[in-house]
Amino acid sequence: MSNGIERKKGINHIGIAVKSLKEAGERFSKMLGEVGHEETVSGEGVRTLIFEEHMIELLEPVSDGSAIAKFIEKRGEGLHHIAITVDNIEKKVEELRAQGFVFTAEKPSTGAGGKKVIFIHPKSANGVLIELVEERE
Amino acid sequence: MSNGIERKKGINHIGIAVKSLKEAGERFSKMLGEVGHEETVSGEGVRTLIFEEHMIELLEPVSDGSAIAKFIEKRGEGLHHIAITVDNIEKKVEELRAQGFVFTAEKPSTGAGGKKVIFIHPKSANGVLIELVEERE
Repeated sequence: MSNGIERKKGINHIGIAVKSLKEAGERFSKMLGEVGHEETVSGEGVRTLIFEEHMIELLEPVSDGSAIAKFIEKRGEGLHHIAITVDNIEKKVEELRAQGFVFTAEKPSTGAGGKKVIFIHPKSANGVLIELVEERE
Repeated sequence: MSNGIERKKGINHIGIAVKSLKEAGERFSKMLGEVGHEETVSGEGVRTLIFEEHMIELLEPVSDGSAIAKFIEKRGEGLHHIAITVDNIEKKVEELRAQGFVFTAEKPSTGAGGKKVIFIHPKSANGVLIELVEERE
């Protein structure tokens, strides 16, 4: 998922799959002492609640066929992906492909906020779904 | 796990369970463009490789009975926990308990680097194992 969190380097955000954005949002808000803001990522079948300061993104499926719905069905709620900020996503993808990394798509797609994103397949990253995010200038 | 990553607020680190620190370390090093440093967390039955800039901690079990060994046996390699920096861990635990949050231990323990840590049970956090970390002054 792409979202409004702006980071120059390192971790961009952590994505957590939840059944109810309302229930989980209240819980995380208490836990983190931070108020989240909601975003819908059209095309991905999810609604998100973002805690900017903590770089946490809660993801609720809005359609049964979405990746998040399938994830919850299979594994239950929990940690879904981590996102890392990169400078030049096309260059990074090319470099990583040359080193044998496998992606879930051929090319980066444009997410919310116009950011370019792509996912490294968990089989290339020790079971972790990793999103690369290029922040807009 | 507690480690050498210093953060004043927000995410402290992300813990990833792996079978081999050597194999996963080389892979993540290529992916992140960062060299990790190793730490052993005595008492926890793990060796860790820490990528400071990316706040990523790889965890390899060194004993069969460790929590990480059990996690990998049950779910395979992957995202294990997220850690959040807090100012005053005793106060935070008290506040969260009053709101119904359940912890995996009665009191914080002292991890590597003398940091106080405690874990919120995944059942209190939508399937996510959350570590609270108080950084030393």
